[in-house]
Amino acid sequence: MKALLIIDMQVGSFGAETPRYDAEGVVGRLNELSEHFRRNGDKVIFIQHEGPDDKTFLKGSDGWNILPSLVRRQGDIVVPKSKNDPFYRTGLEATLKSLGVTQIYITGCATDFCVDATVHAALARDMDIVVVRDCHTTADRPHLPAPKVMEHHEWLWQNMYPTKGRIALVSSKDILPEEHL
Amino acid sequence: MKALLIIDMQVGSFGAETPRYDAEGVVGRLNELSEHFRRNGDKVIFIQHEGPDDKTFLKGSDGWNILPSLVRRQGDIVVPKSKNDPFYRTGLEATLKSLGVTQIYITGCATDFCVDATVHAALARDMDIVVVRDCHTTADRPHLPAPKVMEHHEWLWQNMYPTKGRIALVSSKDILPEEHL
Repeated sequence: MKALLIIDMQVGSFGAETPRYDAEGVVGRLNELSEHFRRNGDKVIFIQHEGPDDKTFLKGSDGWNILPSLVRRQGDIVVPKSKNDPFYRTGLEATLKSLGVTQIYITGCATDFCVDATVHAALARDMDIVVVRDCHTTADRPHLPAPKVMEHHEWLWQNMYPTKGRIALVSSKDILPEEHL
Repeated sequence: MKALLIIDMQVGSFGAETPRYDAEGVVGRLNELSEHFRRNGDKVIFIQHEGPDDKTFLKGSDGWNILPSLVRRQGDIVVPKSKNDPFYRTGLEATLKSLGVTQIYITGCATDFCVDATVHAALARDMDIVVVRDCHTTADRPHLPAPKVMEHHEWLWQNMYPTKGRIALVSSKDILPEEHL
């Protein structure tokens, strides 16, 4: 089974203070992708950041909510986390094992924090990793614009040493069947 | 006890093809730092990348050797690794535990690969982390010059969520006693 991880796509990360690169496009493609995963009997897992370290994401607050524009269905899983790495002291690894997930598709926000931390943690666990290159996003940083940050991390992921699995970058159009493009 | 991790400072990473930013300066400061750690009874640990994934670092080859300009002393430890993350299937974690290391100082090469992977893996292990900002280096990348890559990762490390320990950035001059500056 495959799992689509949709990381930290929450109201608090998409406010006016931190405009995310192509946020609307990313949400649209994630909705296409998640429906495709469900149709195939694969799993959709939302990773949801929660405080108390960061007040923006206090459990139950507005900022903590998953973006209402993201389609969610019965059978989807939500895994709460409180650090960058979604495997850190969470049920994610056990959930993936119990479902028999052999390959994870990594998407969401932010490219340079939690998305990147997920790649590192998944490599440490010998996972087969696919990052969907048009389904992650970040904000402009003080020292670099968002597209350059994304280019840098995509380049890193393609040049890291894989562990037992592979690490691949694909576009959503390489995953979706033609009729959905 | 503290441990100074000197990551992948090997001949194969410092060839003419991949000039490293301020390589000579980094080596000089690492030699000052490592002597300071030894004087204080702290530990110096060299992380040494080895093949077979990368022929440049085949065990016993010229490229595999630790830079001869780096001072090494009896009592230093060498931990071999074969992926980016030096905790991945190595003896590093057990070594740190057996020594009673409570804080690791991260230095070496490359900023955006093995140094960054070390920060991620150490965070996952609840470690108290110090990155020495003038003692890591990388090369120009196709999309970004080395100083900008270093600036980006230093900014990320300062803005990540710490786990049980802290994650701090300091300069070598903040560690060395005044008479050694």
